[in-house]
Amino acid sequence: MELKQMMESINTLDKKALNKAQIRVNSLAKPLGSLGKLEDIAIQIAGITGDINNVIKKKCTIVMSADNGIVEEGVSSTPQNVTALQTINMLDGLTGISVLSKQAGAEIRVIDVGIKADLEHPRLIQKKIMYGTHNFAKGPAMDREQAMEAISIGIETVKQLVDQGYNLLGTGEMGIGNTSTSSAVLMSLTGCNEDIAVGKGGGLTDEALENKKRVIREAVDYHKPNPNDPIDVLTKVGGLDIAGLVGCYIGAAYYRVPIVIDGFISAAAALLAYKLNPVVKEYMIPSHYSLEPGYKSMMDTIGLVPYLHMNMRLGEGTGCPLMFNIIESALAMMNNMITFESAKIDTDYLVDIRA
Amino acid sequence: MELKQMMESINTLDKKALNKAQIRVNSLAKPLGSLGKLEDIAIQIAGITGDINNVIKKKCTIVMSADNGIVEEGVSSTPQNVTALQTINMLDGLTGISVLSKQAGAEIRVIDVGIKADLEHPRLIQKKIMYGTHNFAKGPAMDREQAMEAISIGIETVKQLVDQGYNLLGTGEMGIGNTSTSSAVLMSLTGCNEDIAVGKGGGLTDEALENKKRVIREAVDYHKPNPNDPIDVLTKVGGLDIAGLVGCYIGAAYYRVPIVIDGFISAAAALLAYKLNPVVKEYMIPSHYSLEPGYKSMMDTIGLVPYLHMNMRLGEGTGCPLMFNIIESALAMMNNMITFESAKIDTDYLVDIRA
Repeated sequence: MELKQMMESINTLDKKALNKAQIRVNSLAKPLGSLGKLEDIAIQIAGITGDINNVIKKKCTIVMSADNGIVEEGVSSTPQNVTALQTINMLDGLTGISVLSKQAGAEIRVIDVGIKADLEHPRLIQKKIMYGTHNFAKGPAMDREQAMEAISIGIETVKQLVDQGYNLLGTGEMGIGNTSTSSAVLMSLTGCNEDIAVGKGGGLTDEALENKKRVIREAVDYHKPNPNDPIDVLTKVGGLDIAGLVGCYIGAAYYRVPIVIDGFISAAAALLAYKLNPVVKEYMIPSHYSLEPGYKSMMDTIGLVPYLHMNMRLGEGTGCPLMFNIIESALAMMNNMITFESAKIDTDYLVDIRA
Repeated sequence: MELKQMMESINTLDKKALNKAQIRVNSLAKPLGSLGKLEDIAIQIAGITGDINNVIKKKCTIVMSADNGIVEEGVSSTPQNVTALQTINMLDGLTGISVLSKQAGAEIRVIDVGIKADLEHPRLIQKKIMYGTHNFAKGPAMDREQAMEAISIGIETVKQLVDQGYNLLGTGEMGIGNTSTSSAVLMSLTGCNEDIAVGKGGGLTDEALENKKRVIREAVDYHKPNPNDPIDVLTKVGGLDIAGLVGCYIGAAYYRVPIVIDGFISAAAALLAYKLNPVVKEYMIPSHYSLEPGYKSMMDTIGLVPYLHMNMRLGEGTGCPLMFNIIESALAMMNNMITFESAKIDTDYLVDIRA
């Protein structure tokens, strides 16, 4: 299916189910609204699936792995080969996302959409579009076809997972240089400046941060991506990992499955997907408040408020398994708590004090 | 053992283990500090147990259930018999804390320290000190011996759980009127005023909130509890549930086991325990940012920053199972992530950018 056609067939949440879910939540034996965002999450998922009672069967974080040509400009403290090394370690269960996913009873799917190396691993999904993007300080990161191909890979991955019974997804990435692409995407889409959008990523010195800001500022000024054409932004200053994740968000909305946003790079992709079609937002669930400075602008622009304040800034998708636990708790509340009626508690006194 | 003697034998965290844990965290293959508070939690628990690698064997939220005489003053929107009703529902697995605990693979222990009813349930731990406290608008809520007895019950409960192999605890409560006692404790200990300390609890109208503020203000002015004598505060304007939880925090520090703080009432008890001996704080782990307005003052006074922003205000201990998941994730990070050395990643580029 063409992307445009798919976009047009994405629907808003099921209003009947949202209403029924709100009534059910209000009937649970607790002060009205007192489980706060657990209630909101349970209601959102009812709107996504159309059922008020939901159980997570299988959950998975999709990790898009790709290299970025912009690292030639000295914007990252980490050597480029760490993308390939950590992709393998991730598949071997040894990195942050692997360990936290196992703890949460969740899985990962790791997709090579553009690593600058030929990797062999039985669990690596080989979808390489190119050996890393071009250096966007010198020209577009990729061409429009490549961006569209990466988006298709994301959509297709979601379709396969949904077909396999996964009903809760998360987004992650591995790619040295991808805080630079994410910052450039943020600046291009919102017009904010580099002091708001650019941070130290893995760990830059103050001096190297100034260079990173300059490189990104100059590239955005040079390319002048069209903020009303997210694919143009993606093509000129984005990354293949981000493009793949854009596809994941679109796929999640199309196939009606909740999808969790991790940190800065995941959020850049979420922002692009939101700009392509704002309805996609209704299927997104934020997780943690990334320490990378531009993260707040991204969330504010989409209109989402993260739940976890953990001072994390690792990426890989590490916020997703933490959030999966909370989402499953929200559903447990919905499915298993006693109602006022069953508890034989008179509800005449109920006052809703939510602001 | 006398409380005073126990207090004096509480030690600070194991500095050697804290140092070793920090070194181990820094050796994990990720930018320095990039897992933020997951790192802090793993290090704190190393300092508590003395081992850098920890695994949660069994985890339990201790729920202290008791009634409060102050409800005679119309400070609560909820009928008093809901304390007894919900205590039974909790034991039957039907309330918020029961459902969320089950989801997290955690247990609860529910203790009657002062319910105004005779309850029979095979899992209810019967430790009733009195049939609810006295109305503190008219006289002290309890006498000093009763407060000390409730504290002992908390300490003893922790001892038993530790003996049974539980190595992660949480604090919860059930008791209509206990946001009033908690507000009175906060005002007595910190001198803050009723506009900061008093909120709508389960769900008061604006008019009823004004009455609640007046009742608490007048009672605190009348009793003038000694802010340097937390037991005096507890006796005059506290509750038996709060007193029991004070004992839980003291016991956790004495028996060296991490203990999670839930919401406003749990935090009032944590504040009292902290005032009795500030070292107790080192064993505490906050969970969520309660919407009850005085919560922030309590956390600021103790010097703790909650992790979860969920707009919750149910109590019962509901923040604890959510936090248990995150604590176990922190330990999984510590135990299972690959190190730079094993990953054969050169670490010359490592820069620590934590503020």
